[in-house]
Amino acid sequence: MIETVRWKAGMVRYIDQRLLPERLEFVETDRIDVLAEAIETLAIRGAPAIGIAAAFGIAMAAARALATGNDLDDGLATADARLRRTRPTAVNLFWALDRMAARKRALLTGGARGSALAEGLLDEAEAILAEDLETSRRIGEFGLALVKEGSRVLTHCNAGGLATGGLGTALAPVYAAHEAGRKVEVFADETRPLLQGARLTTWELTQNHIPVTLLCDGASASLLASGRVDLVIVGADRVARNGDTANKIGTLAAALAAKAARVPFYVAAPLSTFDLSLATGADIPIEERAGKEVTDTTTAGAPDGIKVYNPAFDVTPAKLIAGHITEKGILKPPFEL
Amino acid sequence: MIETVRWKAGMVRYIDQRLLPERLEFVETDRIDVLAEAIETLAIRGAPAIGIAAAFGIAMAAARALATGNDLDDGLATADARLRRTRPTAVNLFWALDRMAARKRALLTGGARGSALAEGLLDEAEAILAEDLETSRRIGEFGLALVKEGSRVLTHCNAGGLATGGLGTALAPVYAAHEAGRKVEVFADETRPLLQGARLTTWELTQNHIPVTLLCDGASASLLASGRVDLVIVGADRVARNGDTANKIGTLAAALAAKAARVPFYVAAPLSTFDLSLATGADIPIEERAGKEVTDTTTAGAPDGIKVYNPAFDVTPAKLIAGHITEKGILKPPFEL
Repeated sequence: MIETVRWKAGMVRYIDQRLLPERLEFVETDRIDVLAEAIETLAIRGAPAIGIAAAFGIAMAAARALATGNDLDDGLATADARLRRTRPTAVNLFWALDRMAARKRALLTGGARGSALAEGLLDEAEAILAEDLETSRRIGEFGLALVKEGSRVLTHCNAGGLATGGLGTALAPVYAAHEAGRKVEVFADETRPLLQGARLTTWELTQNHIPVTLLCDGASASLLASGRVDLVIVGADRVARNGDTANKIGTLAAALAAKAARVPFYVAAPLSTFDLSLATGADIPIEERAGKEVTDTTTAGAPDGIKVYNPAFDVTPAKLIAGHITEKGILKPPFEL
Repeated sequence: MIETVRWKAGMVRYIDQRLLPERLEFVETDRIDVLAEAIETLAIRGAPAIGIAAAFGIAMAAARALATGNDLDDGLATADARLRRTRPTAVNLFWALDRMAARKRALLTGGARGSALAEGLLDEAEAILAEDLETSRRIGEFGLALVKEGSRVLTHCNAGGLATGGLGTALAPVYAAHEAGRKVEVFADETRPLLQGARLTTWELTQNHIPVTLLCDGASASLLASGRVDLVIVGADRVARNGDTANKIGTLAAALAAKAARVPFYVAAPLSTFDLSLATGADIPIEERAGKEVTDTTTAGAPDGIKVYNPAFDVTPAKLIAGHITEKGILKPPFEL
């Protein structure tokens, strides 16, 4: 298990995922701005992990208000508002903050004040983490039926231990199959622009001795078409009532390619990712991020020695092509000998 | 027009495209190994440009054999063999070398020897370049019917002036529309791993004052789904008899996404890219390149100040999802409130 986000003596302790795979570095903070920036800059990322971090953030704000003698109510309100502004798409953030707010109201109603209130909030955050780990375990158990002996699984971005309390969503069935003694192999889309697949998915699978092959996002369509993938499993940031699912950019392309190749495409997510207030995916707010994430290509790369699938070309079937524009006109096949 | 590959006094003169957009640098060489490595390392790339470079390479080998007093026949055979080993997928390479070989036979049959033979070969290489420019102009003319006022065109990789003798294939209709006074806008997939879209397509469109927006390859599916693209035009490296088309990795994903979004998807290519000896795309040899192209992310990026489309998420329609794996089991929508 990866200790993605934890509580440590009044502080939130988290892995700065921007530094992986080059180094595994833990940050400890009791400052809400530091935590909020960690979420904004993807030092902490992955829908469930963001929710857990936000919950601990509220507990931390309470502890800090007590320690500094500041107004606890003000501290909690400020922390809640700051955390809500970090990222708009993953609903787990709002789900966790709503749950912490509800717990606060219940504690106040029950007469808890000061340190009793802070302790109650910490208990709730710890419960959210514990439930996440249990949820991941169950996702792994249910997903195990899909990951048979020798399965080759394609995934996009990172929905593993680093995206959750420590076990994963999309990778949970892979870990469960591995633990059950099944041979299983993963293909990891690198996931531009921030390369969570190249940096994080390959890193945590390698740590767990599961074979992984890295590929560019554009290569997954031809990998799927070539018959070398048995199923696709991805995570989710928000699921609408009709099942439409927001996930890391590039997921839709993988889903379309899986459909064309008749490879089953699964989403793995805790119910805290389901937003039943939204009828369809059209209602999900999609975050647009800074252009320099795309233009600046000097990010950390994949771990050393990782296996790579790097075809320079793919083949587009004629049925997808409206016409070939040539010096003789816009032609349609079959072309004559 | 971009002087991608030209003849200059016994030498081949070409743009080292690995250095773009940071600097525009021309290399002059009379060494076949230097030219072959330029093709292998993508200093010269793009199917038509590779063909032109190979043709000039044969002319250069003849000129060099004469200059050094070495055996001309040996020099031509060595050059031909070396160039054929550079890259397997783009058929224009073999088409150009076959054409140069046929010209050589015709010249020998006609009694040409020594400098007459070398001059004849150079004439043929210059003819290949001139025909490429004329072909690009015609592709632009035929494609103009598709690029209407206000058209928003998505392209993948670079099939512009830098990929050809200087005018382009996929970008030829865009340039033609621009010259015809039509407002036209391009979305450029960055095209990992070597970022020809980010580095080359944005560079040459900016040089020509055509608005361009850069996006990650994984983002084109959601861009297409959002209705912000009127048509897709890509180049090709080899077209089979049935119309199946090999092109830069990632093209298939764009074609599938265009189909799903009901956006027409066109291939623009000279007839020299058509390989009618192959029945389908399954027969096209696909080059696999070194993994370090993917793991090493320290390549040059896009030009400064380029416009970027960088959504962090996309939405996958429920119909593409086989099931949602949750802690309560593998669920199917509609999910209940």
